[in-house]
This record gives sequence, C-alpha cells and structure tokens, in this order.
Amino acid sequence: MTEGFAPVAPPDPEVRAAAEARQGSLTKPPGSLGRLEDLGNWVAACQGVCPPKQFERARVVVFAGDHGVARHGVSAYPAEVTAQMVANFRAGGAAVNALARVADATVRVVDIAVAADTEPAVGEYKVRRSSGAIDREDALTADEVAAALAAGQAIADEEIDAGTDLLIAGDMGIGNTTPATALIATLTGTEPVRAVGRGTGVDDHGWMRKVAAVRDAMWRARPSARDGVELLRVAGGADIAAMTGFLARAAARRTPVLLDGLIVTAAALVAEDLAAGASAWWVAAHRSTEPAHDAALTKLKLAPVLDLEMRLGEGSGALTALPVLRAAVAVLAEMSTFADAGVSTATAEPTSAVDLQK
Amino acid sequence: MTEGFAPVAPPDPEVRAAAEARQGSLTKPPGSLGRLEDLGNWVAACQGVCPPKQFERARVVVFAGDHGVARHGVSAYPAEVTAQMVANFRAGGAAVNALARVADATVRVVDIAVAADTEPAVGEYKVRRSSGAIDREDALTADEVAAALAAGQAIADEEIDAGTDLLIAGDMGIGNTTPATALIATLTGTEPVRAVGRGTGVDDHGWMRKVAAVRDAMWRARPSARDGVELLRVAGGADIAAMTGFLARAAARRTPVLLDGLIVTAAALVAEDLAAGASAWWVAAHRSTEPAHDAALTKLKLAPVLDLEMRLGEGSGALTALPVLRAAVAVLAEMSTFADAGVSTATAEPTSAVDLQK
Repeated sequence: MTEGFAPVAPPDPEVRAAAEARQGSLTKPPGSLGRLEDLGNWVAACQGVCPPKQFERARVVVFAGDHGVARHGVSAYPAEVTAQMVANFRAGGAAVNALARVADATVRVVDIAVAADTEPAVGEYKVRRSSGAIDREDALTADEVAAALAAGQAIADEEIDAGTDLLIAGDMGIGNTTPATALIATLTGTEPVRAVGRGTGVDDHGWMRKVAAVRDAMWRARPSARDGVELLRVAGGADIAAMTGFLARAAARRTPVLLDGLIVTAAALVAEDLAAGASAWWVAAHRSTEPAHDAALTKLKLAPVLDLEMRLGEGSGALTALPVLRAAVAVLAEMSTFADAGVSTATAEPTSAVDLQK
Repeated sequence: MTEGFAPVAPPDPEVRAAAEARQGSLTKPPGSLGRLEDLGNWVAACQGVCPPKQFERARVVVFAGDHGVARHGVSAYPAEVTAQMVANFRAGGAAVNALARVADATVRVVDIAVAADTEPAVGEYKVRRSSGAIDREDALTADEVAAALAAGQAIADEEIDAGTDLLIAGDMGIGNTTPATALIATLTGTEPVRAVGRGTGVDDHGWMRKVAAVRDAMWRARPSARDGVELLRVAGGADIAAMTGFLARAAARRTPVLLDGLIVTAAALVAEDLAAGASAWWVAAHRSTEPAHDAALTKLKLAPVLDLEMRLGEGSGALTALPVLRAAVAVLAEMSTFADAGVSTATAEPTSAVDLQK
C-alpha cells in the first residue's frame, strides 16, 4: 500500500437502505424519478443521514499545470494560455466561474505546475514549472510525485475542514489531455488510436502527433502499469497527481465528489487504484466527447449523469450536473409521503379488470 | 387552418447568429461546451437579445385531468389519486413542488377534467369531469375540445402577460399515458405494442390491457388522423387539448418552453400540427422511459437534454433540466471574451511541429 493511501469504506449502507425505503413512501410511483432516486440515496448514504441535507458549501478546486508534451504539436493552443486562464479564473471570467455562480458553488484555483509565474495566492502548492514531456521523459521525479499527491491531499483536507460538503476537481492545462489519455489507455488496455480525441480541437495532423505522443508515453510507462504512483511519475503530471491525492482524500474523509471530465477521471482511475473503494464516493457528472473518458468511466463502473457533448474541463461538466444532484436531494428531503398527503397507493389488483371482459 | 391557430415564425435568426459568433469569442475552445452552447444560442434567439438574460420568472402549469379508460385496468393506481395529487400540489408536497423550489420556478395547478370536485381556485377552466374512455367512446364533444384548447391558450396568455419568461407544462391524471400514447402512435405510425409503456408501473396483464385500449382508440381515431383537433376529441382528452393550446400559444407569443415527458410531448405533437413551426420555441427537457415519448421526440426533431430514466410527469423532467438551461444562459451572458481577458486564441499552425521531426 502506498504511503498515505488505504482502502476506503463505502457510504453508509444502512442509511442507503433507509433512503431506498423512504423513496417508496413518497407521493410518486416507485422508481418513477429514475436516476434522481439513485442519486438522492447516494447523497444520503454519503452524509450518513436520511433524509439528506441540501448542499450548502459546494466547492470547485481547479488544478492548473502545464505539460512539456504541449511543445510537440498536440494542442490547438499555445502553452501560455494556461497561465492566462489562471488569471481569467481569478478574475471570474471563465466558464467555471459562470457555471459556479449559477450552481451556487465557489471556485478555488491552485497552480500545481504552471510553466509561468502566477500570483502568490494560488502558488502555495506549486511543485514545479511544467511537468515533463511524457513522450520522451518522465513527467516528474519521485520527490515531485510525492509532493503533488500530498498537495492534493492537503487541499482536500483544507476544504473539508472549512466545511465543504461537496467537492469538485477541475483541470486547466494546455496539453493535459495527452497525459490523461496515456494514463487511461494504459490502465484500461485501450489502443492509442481508439483513446485519443481532439482535446481543445486539434486538426488531423495534430491528432496524429497526439496519437504518436500517447503511444510513446504508453511504451515508456509499460513497466509502471501496476503501480499507480510510478505511472503518474512516468506518464502523468503534477496536476493529475495532485487531483489523485485530492480525490482519494475526499473519499477517505467521507466527502462526496462530482467527477468532471477526462483529466479528473484519469486521476480518479489512479486514485481508485491507490485507495480501493474510493469510487463509491464519486458520481460521474457527465460523459465528455473524449473517447478515453468513456473507457475510464466504464472501468470505474460509473454511469454519467449528463451527456451534453462537453469537452472543456475546468469542472464545467460537474458544475452543470450539480443542480441535478441538488434536485435529487430536494426530492428525497422535501416530498410528502403517501400517508402524510392522504394519497392512495397502487392497487394490488386492477380497479376493475372485469370491465374488460367485453 | 383551425380557428385560433396559425403558423409560427421562428426565434430571431439574426440574434441566433450573433449568439453563435459570441460563443466563438468566449474564453473556451469553440464548441467545447457542446449542447450548452446550442441551448444558450436558442435562448438568445427566443429572447431576441444577445447576450441573453437569465430567467427570472420560470413557471410550471400542471394540467390535471382524469380519463375514463383508467376504469379499464390500464393503471397501477386508482383514479381518485388525481384529485388527491391536486391537493398535494397545492400543499407543496409533490415532486413538482420540491423540484420547482430548487430550480427557482413557481407552480400553478389547473383542474381541466378531474373526475372529482377540487378547490375553486384551480377550477376556473374545468371543462368536464373526466374525459371519455377512448377505447370505447369519444374523449370529448366538439364544444369541449374547443373549450379545452381555448383554456390552454388563455392560461398561456395569463402567464405571459404576468411576466413569465419560461413556461413548462406538467401533467397529472391517472390513465393519461393511454390517450397520450394513442395520439403519438397515430401521428407517428407506431404499432401499439411498440408504443405502450408501463406508465406508473402496471404489471404484465395491465400492460396487455393498455395495449388493447390503445389499439382500440387508434382504430376509432383512424378517420381523424389528419385533423389534430378531431384527433384530440376522439382519442385525446381535455387536459391534453388544453396543453396543446397552451404550447401553441406560448410559441405564438414568442415565449420559450421546456417540454416535459410523454403527456406534454403528445400535446406538443398536435400543437406543431395545428401551428406549424411552434416546435422551434420548445426544447425537449428529457427522454422518459415511455417508448412513445421517444417516437414523438423523433417526429418533432427534438433532442432531449437529459436521459435520467424518469417517468413521473408533473413537469418533473422539465424542472430537472431547467438548471442546465440556466447554465447555458450564464455561459453566454457572463463569460469573458479572449480579447477582454487577454487570453491567446488557437494557433493557426502547431506551435512547433518541427519539434516532432525526430
């Protein structure tokens, strides 16, 4: 077992059973709210209380980091965009900010490995400037991967200690779909040509360069495939390692998480590897258009809540799904029961089947 | 052309084009928010202004009505539940109430054809007590169908005149999936065995009775298939006719609508038939588990926002999707542009493809 990680106990099964029973007593046909019922039961089990409480402090942490592979023509955008977007997050002008405001969540940005200097307020956990170009070199040293994992754990602790009741991890980093895809393809046994997507929107030649980079990174990572930490070191990156620590720690601290898209789910796949059972504390918010994302969700046995052809990252998919989770809580917490409302329940026998004997 | 109905002009194409252009200037890769971008552009075009304004008065109108066919063993619940649920809506204890509170919408209930007496406040537009048993008799008289259509139009006018900026129709009525399925199967040419679902949860024998009832209603409706009003009269019901008037009027009044599930979408299919082009003012909130719902959405060329295995009605699916629409508005209205935020745009050429010539 890797230091700092241990198997994770699931959300409370007795509370889950109580939530399932309560769903059956509410004024609706049993099961008629579909996935909303499952989600509500999951929240209750995570909180250890039924009916569950509405989320009051939902928090997004955006992990920003650059990747050396971005110099190798795998992205439609120049690497300087990562630092520019960190400033945009801080100014409140990015998608994650707009979506957080409308979903009643707050946003924190952390610079884990941006290639440029960022403002001091976001740099407390900075591990290095850019992770290595994984098609040719290791992403990190052993000390750096340990520091990044610990950073993610510490950030989760800070947020949970501050009273956060729902965590979301977001990503920002030009080139980050390349290491995320390499990690997922390695852990799910997927061929690079099937795993690699268009990321921010590379053209055909860019896509071919990206396939080559993922293939080369997977070749380098092959000896590390059974060791999550080593895999992050060789073919991941500091931002993804920090998210891995963050997600595993959230589960250990019994705090529910809405998973975002490709990058976060790559970290989730490693986190489940390091802390078996952690995935029971996560719900997959959406299915991105990146093909490797679907492979990761399948491996994690997580069914996405939304499927809206989103592929931005930043936590945008998770924030779009957050109101659905709130709806699930509202149903379980606020609806009347058949008994309270004086509504008749389903009939054991059809009311007058004899009517049909015509 | 049926009296009171006329073809409907689409949302503003120039504003839509302006919204599409604005999406491309916001700090995200073009298209990376997928369906959220389409939805935001649609809202802007409906409002005739870009960027669009966040919805301030979203309103659900639940149309309650009983159906004679419920006496023929097609539902898992006794017909008395319709009136009991009307009281539950008024008391705020139903799913639609909980979901409306969390989505910042308000709920109005109207008794169009409940079989029992309801409180006077909801009965202003009551057409009759229960619509007819469509497997054996007409649902309505010619006067009644005209009254129901006019009721829906009047209700839409009232809501729009009061300042509502987004409308949702909901349904409540034991047995109402039977006429809705008969209407959709007739208008889409679907066989009853493929169109009929479990509704509130009938068993196998109930499902077989329901297939027989839909088949008989479709046989009776065959001569009316090309006349939407006549079809509502023969094989629909007063509640569905009122929703038809409501949806067509909302479009004529240039007010966007989030469509709920099977019952509302059956009314939408007829409304599009009566007021060609109305469907451009509607977004399909979700795909229900009722098979006829999917057939209706396909015919209307509407792609559902959510697919959460819901099948409750009441407007519950539309209210669950409402925050997604709000998210789409927030993105388009609040995000910074590349120019404003000082973020670099996509590179025409890969930054250093030559790097890869190793």
